Amino acid sequence: MTEAEDWWATAISDISPGSIRLRGYAIEDLIGSVSYPQMVWLMTRGSLPSAAEAALLELTLVAAVDHGPQAPSVAAARMAASCGLDLNNAMATGVNLLGDVHGGAGQQCMEVLRSLVDSGQPVGAAATALVAAYKERGAYVPGFGHRFHPRDPRRDPLMTAIAEAVADGTVEGRYVEAALALEAVLAGGARPVPMNIDGATATIYCELGFAPELGRGLFVLSRSVGLLAHAWEQHNEPTRIKGPLPRSANPTYTGPPPRTLP
Amino acid sequence: MTEAEDWWATAISDISPGSIRLRGYAIEDLIGSVSYPQMVWLMTRGSLPSAAEAALLELTLVAAVDHGPQAPSVAAARMAASCGLDLNNAMATGVNLLGDVHGGAGQQCMEVLRSLVDSGQPVGAAATALVAAYKERGAYVPGFGHRFHPRDPRRDPLMTAIAEAVADGTVEGRYVEAALALEAVLAGGARPVPMNIDGATATIYCELGFAPELGRGLFVLSRSVGLLAHAWEQHNEPTRIKGPLPRSANPTYTGPPPRTLP
Amino acid sequence: MTEAEDWWATAISDISPGSIRLRGYAIEDLIGSVSYPQMVWLMTRGSLPSAAEAALLELTLVAAVDHGPQAPSVAAARMAASCGLDLNNAMATGVNLLGDVHGGAGQQCMEVLRSLVDSGQPVGAAATALVAAYKERGAYVPGFGHRFHPRDPRRDPLMTAIAEAVADGTVEGRYVEAALALEAVLAGGARPVPMNIDGATATIYCELGFAPELGRGLFVLSRSVGLLAHAWEQHNEPTRIKGPLPRSANPTYTGPPPRTLP
Amino acid sequence: MTEAEDWWATAISDISPGSIRLRGYAIEDLIGSVSYPQMVWLMTRGSLPSAAEAALLELTLVAAVDHGPQAPSVAAARMAASCGLDLNNAMATGVNLLGDVHGGAGQQCMEVLRSLVDSGQPVGAAATALVAAYKERGAYVPGFGHRFHPRDPRRDPLMTAIAEAVADGTVEGRYVEAALALEAVLAGGARPVPMNIDGATATIYCELGFAPELGRGLFVLSRSVGLLAHAWEQHNEPTRIKGPLPRSANPTYTGPPPRTLP
Repeated sequence: MTEAEDWWATAISDISPGSIRLRGYAIEDLIGSVSYPQMVWLMTRGSLPSAAEAALLELTLVAAVDHGPQAPSVAAARMAASCGLDLNNAMATGVNLLGDVHGGAGQQCMEVLRSLVDSGQPVGAAATALVAAYKERGAYVPGFGHRFHPRDPRRDPLMTAIAEAVADGTVEGRYVEAALALEAVLAGGARPVPMNIDGATATIYCELGFAPELGRGLFVLSRSVGLLAHAWEQHNEPTRIKGPLPRSANPTYTGPPPRTLP
Repeated sequence: MTEAEDWWATAISDISPGSIRLRGYAIEDLIGSVSYPQMVWLMTRGSLPSAAEAALLELTLVAAVDHGPQAPSVAAARMAASCGLDLNNAMATGVNLLGDVHGGAGQQCMEVLRSLVDSGQPVGAAATALVAAYKERGAYVPGFGHRFHPRDPRRDPLMTAIAEAVADGTVEGRYVEAALALEAVLAGGARPVPMNIDGATATIYCELGFAPELGRGLFVLSRSVGLLAHAWEQHNEPTRIKGPLPRSANPTYTGPPPRTLP
Repeated sequence: MTEAEDWWATAISDISPGSIRLRGYAIEDLIGSVSYPQMVWLMTRGSLPSAAEAALLELTLVAAVDHGPQAPSVAAARMAASCGLDLNNAMATGVNLLGDVHGGAGQQCMEVLRSLVDSGQPVGAAATALVAAYKERGAYVPGFGHRFHPRDPRRDPLMTAIAEAVADGTVEGRYVEAALALEAVLAGGARPVPMNIDGATATIYCELGFAPELGRGLFVLSRSVGLLAHAWEQHNEPTRIKGPLPRSANPTYTGPPPRTLP
Repeated sequence: MTEAEDWWATAISDISPGSIRLRGYAIEDLIGSVSYPQMVWLMTRGSLPSAAEAALLELTLVAAVDHGPQAPSVAAARMAASCGLDLNNAMATGVNLLGDVHGGAGQQCMEVLRSLVDSGQPVGAAATALVAAYKERGAYVPGFGHRFHPRDPRRDPLMTAIAEAVADGTVEGRYVEAALALEAVLAGGARPVPMNIDGATATIYCELGFAPELGRGLFVLSRSVGLLAHAWEQHNEPTRIKGPLPRSANPTYTGPPPRTLP
């Protein structure tokens, strides 16, 4: 092995002529034996999940596929498609936008849930203190409330599923407890802010043992489905160089009036 | 509806406060009822696949997740992660590279298979003519041969599965026939060039009725798993600003010798 | 030199500890001696331009910096900034959209102008034939007409400058002649379609000897200024997760009515 | 004006049929009257710089164009080009990588210089305290030292130019003083860590009154030149799907040995 080969060392894939092994398993054994969610788990964590764990992961991958062209990631992917970009470039454009603000709430909520569970305090007290601290600095608790939905329709099926997984012993339930404690504290405010999809998926990901950063990566895998569907729908429409507004409209100008160079 | 609202019209998602419907189905009905591959199908095509169709799609999504850091898409995602980019930006960097050359062979193979089936000729004769035409212009037939693998280990499990789906009536089998005809013609050359993963997935996607462009989109969904795993592995390593070579090595310089400005 | 070092061979930059040479010139000699446009020329072509050539290039880099948020590249960069992305990620998002349709007209026009000049025919006749061929297949001649401006205000200053450069012998003028011939033929149509910025910059780039593909690259360098300005303006506004429409508006839904799973 | 038009309000560009005004100036007045660096300043800040200010900005735009394919941004752009991506997509890939770690040192150094100048303390004392604080937490001071160059060859011409601009009254010199104070403190360490290009450009940008975030944006405009040159050089080479290592080399595998599914 040369220094350059070591520079690119990886524990994920072992490729040699005629052979592809991922995390030690031959690809021909994996095809047909593991599902897409199991493969996601294997690739990111190095081992295979149980069927029950994979089922929980699959719920989250299904839940977050799309929120329409009002989402900037989807709109950007559609605009890219209207500029003639291939589907991969249009999808990349959308994925790029799923940063801290648009795609990071799940990751941030996972960090919050972990901090509650790791606090050593009873979760109720820890949740009360955390909400007070957020309120004091005028911040939203990530994973709760939605700027569009009074109650996010994805919350209940996800939280029901994870509650069942606690009941049957698939997961331990400490993060579910923390998330529900937070929701209870937040329900006492001026306006209830129930858990949203980011909060519900964060709860599941914490229970399944994913690192917070991976929460964002899993969201990308899910939302990429919507990006593909929207880029493809746009690709099949005649509009080209699609701006945010139809051509008859023009962004309002708020700058200096016409002037001449000095 | 205003003109601006019409400008962003879509048949995919119908979002109103408290409600998310995808292709007409309420998201709370979909979660737990459909798998990730079924959701991919629903979103891109507007209707739900049968279980057997979804199983075939899932095989392809599992098969193509990774080919190691030797692939430029994976290397670019790892370099992005080493530059401190968040996982979504690193994944977007990799997805962007899956263009015509690195991610388009499946799409191109689908077009080839369609042209054979639509030719009106017996597929054997059509395949012979097509291979001759490619040979004459010195081009490779997309989906056949691999620059690294003498025989791609993903070919057999995929082609076995689609053969079984033909046998049980899940799909018709015309594209399988065309792909095998091409492979047979190519086996008669100086060096056999068996079907590779792009050819095998193209065959399955054609049988399932996907448009060729979607072949690339589905590949992106699959390869995104590997991009995530590699970006995450790199994120957890101490190397920063990772170039293609270790710092002790330096790209060979082939330009003009030192010179001074005129 | 190892094989890996040769793999990354380049004729552009020669870097060793304490030394950076670009195309053979020491960076400390270049700083303060060459302008940005001269550096662009040196880096892409390997030699330094004359002052007159650099001045023409600078005109084009100034002319194309922005066309407002109605342009999808600019809108996407602004949306990215509103999602909290750093300026480089927001700029990359916009640059990604400058593909064949949104950023390729200049390159395509350069190919048209070259084909006229290389046709061996008198340019008038060649232009007439070319316009007829485009008309027959219902296509626009790239670089002429603008979907928004009846007459592009950037045409005249650019074409005046290149005409002066022909007069003083800086450039030969064959591509100017071809572009004006095309414009003259197109003026005879139902609706005059004067040269737009892509046509005018394409004329200048052809006269300066740039390859057509570089036409797009130079446009990217110019438009990146607008992308930066708009991403920065957006960054300083409070809006987060900015979709194409304000929250009170909602994209029109055109898909199937509410339905239940089978 | 509709709400949607207000949603896209901007103070930068005022576009109407036949008219393009940037920051109030007609584009036809700007073309030929202002240089590229002046345009960069006008677009990002709303007013025109003096000739002396523009000349300082131009130095920085020239200085940072390239650091060879060893830089991950350049390598990623070259890999993208080898995958057949158009130049804009290849450039976007490289720009995307210029994040906090690979492209943010200048911005971070600007924040450091501002904190010294705004500290109210004599800069010498403030610099000593800052270096001690960085040392205590084991961090590098951004803008000083280079992992490859013992002394960055771009430092001297840039710092000489800004010193002259202080002498002739173009700028005030407080940030120059702070930067030199930092360099002097750092010279007293175990290993001297002279200012690098990020430190020198940060000093100039602070003197010119740019916001720190714009430091990164200006670096992107400069480095985009190198990205274009490298993507174009790669485009003209026959290598396709260029990974980090030549095909004969293979990344070292460090994961689990071959295993079978449970």
